[in-house]
Amino acid sequence: MSEKPIKETSYPNMVHKFETYAGKLSASQPALMETFWKLHKNVVGDGALDTKMKELMALAISVAARCDGCIAHHVRDALKAGATEEEITDTLGVAVLMGGGTSVVYATHAMEALEQFIDKIN
Amino acid sequence: MSEKPIKETSYPNMVHKFETYAGKLSASQPALMETFWKLHKNVVGDGALDTKMKELMALAISVAARCDGCIAHHVRDALKAGATEEEITDTLGVAVLMGGGTSVVYATHAMEALEQFIDKIN
Amino acid sequence: MSEKPIKETSYPNMVHKFETYAGKLSASQPALMETFWKLHKNVVGDGALDTKMKELMALAISVAARCDGCIAHHVRDALKAGATEEEITDTLGVAVLMGGGTSVVYATHAMEALEQFIDKIN
Amino acid sequence: MSEKPIKETSYPNMVHKFETYAGKLSASQPALMETFWKLHKNVVGDGALDTKMKELMALAISVAARCDGCIAHHVRDALKAGATEEEITDTLGVAVLMGGGTSVVYATHAMEALEQFIDKIN
Amino acid sequence: MSEKPIKETSYPNMVHKFETYAGKLSASQPALMETFWKLHKNVVGDGALDTKMKELMALAISVAARCDGCIAHHVRDALKAGATEEEITDTLGVAVLMGGGTSVVYATHAMEALEQFIDKIN
Amino acid sequence: MSEKPIKETSYPNMVHKFETYAGKLSASQPALMETFWKLHKNVVGDGALDTKMKELMALAISVAARCDGCIAHHVRDALKAGATEEEITDTLGVAVLMGGGTSVVYATHAMEALEQFIDKIN
Repeated sequence: MSEKPIKETSYPNMVHKFETYAGKLSASQPALMETFWKLHKNVVGDGALDTKMKELMALAISVAARCDGCIAHHVRDALKAGATEEEITDTLGVAVLMGGGTSVVYATHAMEALEQFIDKIN
Repeated sequence: MSEKPIKETSYPNMVHKFETYAGKLSASQPALMETFWKLHKNVVGDGALDTKMKELMALAISVAARCDGCIAHHVRDALKAGATEEEITDTLGVAVLMGGGTSVVYATHAMEALEQFIDKIN
Repeated sequence: MSEKPIKETSYPNMVHKFETYAGKLSASQPALMETFWKLHKNVVGDGALDTKMKELMALAISVAARCDGCIAHHVRDALKAGATEEEITDTLGVAVLMGGGTSVVYATHAMEALEQFIDKIN
Repeated sequence: MSEKPIKETSYPNMVHKFETYAGKLSASQPALMETFWKLHKNVVGDGALDTKMKELMALAISVAARCDGCIAHHVRDALKAGATEEEITDTLGVAVLMGGGTSVVYATHAMEALEQFIDKIN
Repeated sequence: MSEKPIKETSYPNMVHKFETYAGKLSASQPALMETFWKLHKNVVGDGALDTKMKELMALAISVAARCDGCIAHHVRDALKAGATEEEITDTLGVAVLMGGGTSVVYATHAMEALEQFIDKIN
Repeated sequence: MSEKPIKETSYPNMVHKFETYAGKLSASQPALMETFWKLHKNVVGDGALDTKMKELMALAISVAARCDGCIAHHVRDALKAGATEEEITDTLGVAVLMGGGTSVVYATHAMEALEQFIDKIN
């Protein structure tokens, strides 16, 4: 099987689509989305833990929750917050410990997302 | 990133594939699928709550459960049962309250599905 | 086995504990919890759907998500919003359709919670 | 910490409570529960796989789904269908492989349930 | 809707991508992945239950967990271990019993994967 | 309702029971559990991220996964690794952002566990 070229999943496209349809949801339910984004801002800002660490945690949860759109977002945002490739793969290890084989599958999605985002951001 | 055109997911195709392979599963396990469809019919019919409300509930669960194929089905069936766009986005709010950021991601999938089904049904 | 008396789970105690420790979390992370409660208020208020219907949806998600503390809350709040016993059990049917046997187990938890809250509220 | 006596969870009580409240749900929603039990009967009966193997699979799913009430049921029913202790713990291994640390936690719940049911059934 | 040709999902491509990115994760976190693969080998080998039965259990969990990449893997590996089509669809029945409608959706994914792998392996 | 004294859940008892039954699972499946504990050791040791940060991540996943036994473990182990109360509640914020209302419920469980473990460890 492994001779065939890989059909790539575009994680940047996932983020782009998310933003488009989140905008449409905001247009229909403005109070909902304004409050959600305020919650987001309150949580990921520096506190006892810094933004980078919280983005890595959000990535760990994304893998454990088997949520590709979440993985796309938090790989990108962890890189933006200054996370290194090694910190990201170490994070994937925690997800695998907690979530076993199903998390290994989604950890590989995070690896593909990492490959796609790393040059655009660093 | 947002200059690139969005690569669309086809929710009608998801429903179409579901029906095709559900048929093949029925052919192999007829008693299983007959009983499942009977359960479906018993549940979604009008009772203390009407079909429309139960389809919206099924959609809320689909988003919380991060199940795209379920979202495709229940956006379509909620529209068929007479749900309005506003009732659907209000439903997505409940899913976001219960499920946070991971549900926001799948709520955007429901928005894309809504856009694809709304003209075909209304 | 069925001759032994049932050891009851107290769903009102669950709500009471939730409120106590949610208060302690608020004391430590006030911005987090203020925004979460604002999100809660924005979502469950009357909109295209009324509060009662949204509480029933939240209950459906609670059962599907296998979350006893959530079941306690939303059985109580659905009753407070005027839901009848029949509307609640009809809601449990949607959860069972979407979630199968694991949801049947948590639907029985909702039945126990219903029995404990119904006289206090109606 | 380990000097304190363990506060035991009663898995037979869980099954007993389940049966009581499933009966109350049936009284309120008879068509729902009749169809669910028919689905149950159709699935767990001997087919390409025998009942014992299907009960073990249901146990594996119960552990992966972190559902104590499901674990209680399917440990009991796997034993009733003739499963040995070794077959049950081998099943728990599959759940751990697929579900990692969270499944290890629920695998220990299955071990406690096994201890409580094994003498009553064999 | 059903006149349009189905846009196929390639389950062999999923396995191929998994292997590629699992290799990259191994390169970055060798101790993690070596231990995970050792766990995999210890679990799926013949024990009280044979490899075929454990692969079918892993498939049941994959469907219940709504994990397409896992479904791809375990349909392939169940076939490799000698499982018949009937044993696989009987396994899907257990997943549907435990997981309801959301598992029916992923059971149809397993049917599509089965169709794609069966000729390559048998 | 809030006049009644709270019926406490003992998180130290949960850890104690886990250790007891994990020992029994090891006795029956030694290769399984030895490899799991090796995976645990490989993952939580200092790497690109330190043990404290990885225990906090494991706690974030535990809350998002609605796993009380996991919460018990990782609150205790985060404290042992030197995490402060503020770092723990900041971690709970990430879980709430990702998991919404269902994660608020389990965040309150983490608060109760924190109260029970903090004096024994610090």
